[in-house]
Order: sequence, then C-alpha cells, then structure tokens
Amino acid sequence: MHDLIIIGGGAAALSATSSALSKHLNVLVIYEQLGGKTGQRLTLRSEEDYLVGHILVHLAFPEEQPVGEAQLAGEETVHLFERQVKARSGVTLRDRVVKITRVEDYFHVETQRNGVKKGAAVVVATGVQPRTLDVPGAQEFLGMGIGYSPTTHAILLEDKTAAVVGTSQRALRGAVELSRTASKIYLIEPEAVPSDHPLIQVLHDRPNVEIFENCRVTEVQGVSTVEQILIEYEGQTRSLHVDAAFVDLGLLPNSAIVKGLVETDENGFIVVDHKNETSLPGLFAAGDVTTAFGEQVLIAIGEGARAGLRAFDYLLAHPAIYERAVRSR
Amino acid sequence: MHDLIIIGGGAAALSATSSALSKHLNVLVIYEQLGGKTGQRLTLRSEEDYLVGHILVHLAFPEEQPVGEAQLAGEETVHLFERQVKARSGVTLRDRVVKITRVEDYFHVETQRNGVKKGAAVVVATGVQPRTLDVPGAQEFLGMGIGYSPTTHAILLEDKTAAVVGTSQRALRGAVELSRTASKIYLIEPEAVPSDHPLIQVLHDRPNVEIFENCRVTEVQGVSTVEQILIEYEGQTRSLHVDAAFVDLGLLPNSAIVKGLVETDENGFIVVDHKNETSLPGLFAAGDVTTAFGEQVLIAIGEGARAGLRAFDYLLAHPAIYERAVRSR
Repeated sequence: MHDLIIIGGGAAALSATSSALSKHLNVLVIYEQLGGKTGQRLTLRSEEDYLVGHILVHLAFPEEQPVGEAQLAGEETVHLFERQVKARSGVTLRDRVVKITRVEDYFHVETQRNGVKKGAAVVVATGVQPRTLDVPGAQEFLGMGIGYSPTTHAILLEDKTAAVVGTSQRALRGAVELSRTASKIYLIEPEAVPSDHPLIQVLHDRPNVEIFENCRVTEVQGVSTVEQILIEYEGQTRSLHVDAAFVDLGLLPNSAIVKGLVETDENGFIVVDHKNETSLPGLFAAGDVTTAFGEQVLIAIGEGARAGLRAFDYLLAHPAIYERAVRSR
Repeated sequence: MHDLIIIGGGAAALSATSSALSKHLNVLVIYEQLGGKTGQRLTLRSEEDYLVGHILVHLAFPEEQPVGEAQLAGEETVHLFERQVKARSGVTLRDRVVKITRVEDYFHVETQRNGVKKGAAVVVATGVQPRTLDVPGAQEFLGMGIGYSPTTHAILLEDKTAAVVGTSQRALRGAVELSRTASKIYLIEPEAVPSDHPLIQVLHDRPNVEIFENCRVTEVQGVSTVEQILIEYEGQTRSLHVDAAFVDLGLLPNSAIVKGLVETDENGFIVVDHKNETSLPGLFAAGDVTTAFGEQVLIAIGEGARAGLRAFDYLLAHPAIYERAVRSR
C-alpha cells in the first residue's frame, strides 16, 4: 500500500507530489499526461504569434508583459517538479484512473491497465477541460482567430472587432477587458445570464458591446483567418464580421472518478476547504478540479503544495493507517 | 488614487503585485522589507549547516532532499517578482502602514512617513511573526541548537534527544515527525492541549515522547551549543539534557492595521474565502496573515496570485470606482 496516491499530471498534482516527497512519503502519481496545461503553451503561443503576425502586425506593445514572467516562473516550477518526479523510480504510473472507492480506512484506486492501487490517502488533481465550440469552421480556424483565452489577448485587439462566446465568469471578464481596447465586442450568450450579475451590468453600459442572449454560433467562416461568424438569434441567422472570436463555454471538471464519493458543487467541482480537504477524510483535492479553482498556474501550484502537506498531516494524525501503509510496502 | 494598494513585501504580496501588473492595474506596493521569509533563508541555512557540521556530522543524508527543490523554486519565483516590481517606477513605497480605513467606496491607507495613499481596492499580505522564546540563553543559542523550524530537521536528529516547545499544530506535527527518528523527545507545552487532539493522542502513544503540560522553559544552557534546558514543572525546576530545542510558540498575524475593519479569527488571522475576499468588499487578503495560511512559499505565491486576480475582478465589476481611480491618476 502507498502512503499517498496522487491522481493527475498537471501543476497541482506535481506540486502535491513534490510536497509529499519532501515529507518522505511513499507516493504514487497516476497520470495520463505530465505537465498539464503548461504542455499547451506552444499552441497558445503560436496562436498569439499568428495574431500578432497577421491580424495585428502594426500594434506596438505598450510595455513589457509581466503576465508572461509570472506565467513562465510558474511553468518553470512545474517543469522542475516534473524532472524531480521522473528522477524517482517507482513514483509515477502512466494510466487512466477509472474509479476511487473507500475500503475500510484506506482507498482503492482502480486503473484501466494496472489493476487496483491501494493508498492510505489520496489527492485528486485531475483538472478541467474546456467545453469546445462544435460547429463547422471552429476547429479549422483554431489559432487563426478562434481562441479559448480572451484575457491574454486584450491588448492585441485594440480598434478591432471581436466576439466572445460564453456565459462563464471568465467569458464575461474577458468581454469587459476586451471592450476597453477593442472597437466592438459581440457577446454571444448561449443562455441568459442573471441581469443582476455585476459584469453583465457593466457590459450593458458599454456603448461598444452588443449582447446576444439565448444565441448560438452556427458556423465560423473566413479565408486564411476568421472573417465572420454566423449566429442564430431570435429565429434568424445573422452574420457578424469579426477579427477574432474567443470561446469560453465553461470548464468541465474531471471529477467523474469521485462521483458519489465526495461532495461536489452544481457544476461538478470538488468542494474543498482551506486545508484542501474534501467531505471524505483522507481524500484531498487540489487545483482546477476543485471549488478553489484559480485559472493560473501559480495558484494551482500553491493549492497542490498545500494538499500534499495536509495529506501528510492526515497520515501523522492517523498512525494506524499510516503505519499499516508503511509495513505493507 | 491607485487602482490597487498592496501591503506587504513577502511572497504573497509580490505575487499579488505581479498578477495585478499583468492586468495593467495602477498598483502601489507598500512594504517594510522586500522578499519576506525568503530573506531569512540564509539564517536557516547556516543553522542547518551548523547542526550538520557539529552535532550531527556523521549522519549521512539518505537521499536528495526534494523539499529544497520546491522551496528554491518558490524563492526563485519570489525573486523574479521582486526584480519585476523594482523595475517599474512608482510601484513601490518603502514605509510602514499604520491604518486602513474605508472612505465612501474606496480606501485610505495611512503610512508613517508618506501620509495617506488612496486606493480603489486593497490587498493585505502583511504576514506573520513567530512568538519568540524570551528566556536567558534562548537568543544566545539561536542557531546553535535552538531553532524555530522542527520539521526541516527531523532527518538530522536520528538517535538524538530534542525538545519541542509549543502547543501549535506546527509544534505538535514537528514533535510527531521528530519522534520517528530521534531517540527521545520532550514536548514542553506552556498550556494544556485538548486531549482529543489527534496529534496529542499519537504523541501519548509514542514510547520515546515525554509530555510536560502547563510547563515553561526558564533557561537554555550549554557551552558552544545547547546542552540542557531548565523547565518549571509542577512547582519545581528540572533540567533536561537535549541536543536541540525547537520552539514554536505560534505565529502572530500582522493584522493590527485592519483591526475592527474586517473579520478575523480568534487568533487575529484575517478570515478569507476561496476568492481571497475578506468580510469587507474591495479589501482582499493573502498569505500567512489569513486563515488560508499555508506555511510554504509556494502556497503564499498561489494565494497572492489569486488575490491580485480577484481584486482585478472586483474593479471590473465596479466600474464607477475603477474609472474614478483611473481618472484621478
């Protein structure tokens, strides 16, 4: 039996692993892909380069972009954790976790190809995945004007027209940010947003923002980059000219493996407290899959470090469980 | 008026600043010392070297210490933030904040030497300070067997005798950790600890742990390093031979500047939710001064990044406040 099984391969999972290894725990990390969202950076970067190179080639950057520095520092840390974890033998297992069950006072972690792994404690850090826009052209123009991260491009869209598709907090915040520099923003909301939402009130007051409620995108069109999107609104199809469209249809937490085992919120995010404890003692959660969700790599690193430390606290406070795990190594 | 005033110079404050700068906020950071606890590393390190060099010179390290890697990565990130913040003109102010008051919908931050600074939002990240042991010899032997960080030395004390002084969670955890390698642990508790505390139960069951409740240290004695501590216990003075003594009398949050303004817990830590919001809208808090306290630099970095981002969200959602701040620059 392992002292601690950590599920996930992203920033939170790797940070939890590093934290647990520093406490000399016998750790097993089960992941499908190491590096998490930091592995996606190349895609995002090329998208950004494209936007800079083609659509916005004349836009001068007003100043150094500190977001890059913080982001890079976070990614560097994740890569350091990754090297550290890989350097240990027997710590990692590349597999898909199918289910977690509690058996007496420990956990069974069922994998797809390697059977059941037993752990005295568990950290779930399985992350999220974005809901994608599934219409003709959306995939084709990904990175050619279609993006999933409005806020990092706010500065690039000065005097341009952009669409933001989605009702999430992130989509609304992105629309507010973009509306400060872009000449025109279309906000496409698949469902209605409560009219007392503070960001919606802000957006209603902006003269350069046009809001389409209960509206969906049906197609993305263009030649080499996006030129227009087709929307279905009030029973009619309309065409909107845009230089870019940012999609944020919300994030789906990868929490199916703990369904019914721990408390989740209405969207499936695992409810955690300030100690990264879930509703089930011994089972901790960290990063984007939790209600302490933070969108940024540095936040995920912090949450992971705390989950690893709290799992260690739990083992110290339950010596019967901990020592059984130690004996069964 | 500034968009955001950040108070503190440690990991959480610098991370919040970096996060806010990345959103192009007009930020002012008011600090007494930059770098926070990472500036103390040299002291800790020399203490460790001393312990290794003199008391425990024959102990071979069983493996690489990954705690160092994670810790160093965190410190590197903090130094990067520090350089980034210093490179911006007008962002920093070295001064002591005396008081924060809410005036209409913004904040007055009163400093000792530079008058009142106005901010549309505030992040408090003022950290903690350890309660020190204030008896003869305690200061003299600091780093010569007297330390304030039991857990980082657990591995160094194999087959040695150590005292742990304090009733905090950190002290109890330290005692449990040390008791796994040390031959003898004296736990000196200035007050009684609830007997149902899980770690106290564990410690009671350990044959090599002796607990002194309602007991205080009156003197630290030795020649070049600590050799014994004097304690007052049940009306008598006793002398205990020790190779090291670790003091953790708890941490004092630096929260006096928000006393009466926001909710704090019974120990003075600022109560925050998952968004780093305090009980007062527009006032955010991060790091060790909060109830989300995490002891590790990576956790403080994560909390700071989130506070900076949430403060930005707050400004976006309150355009009247935000735009007044922008106009008054």
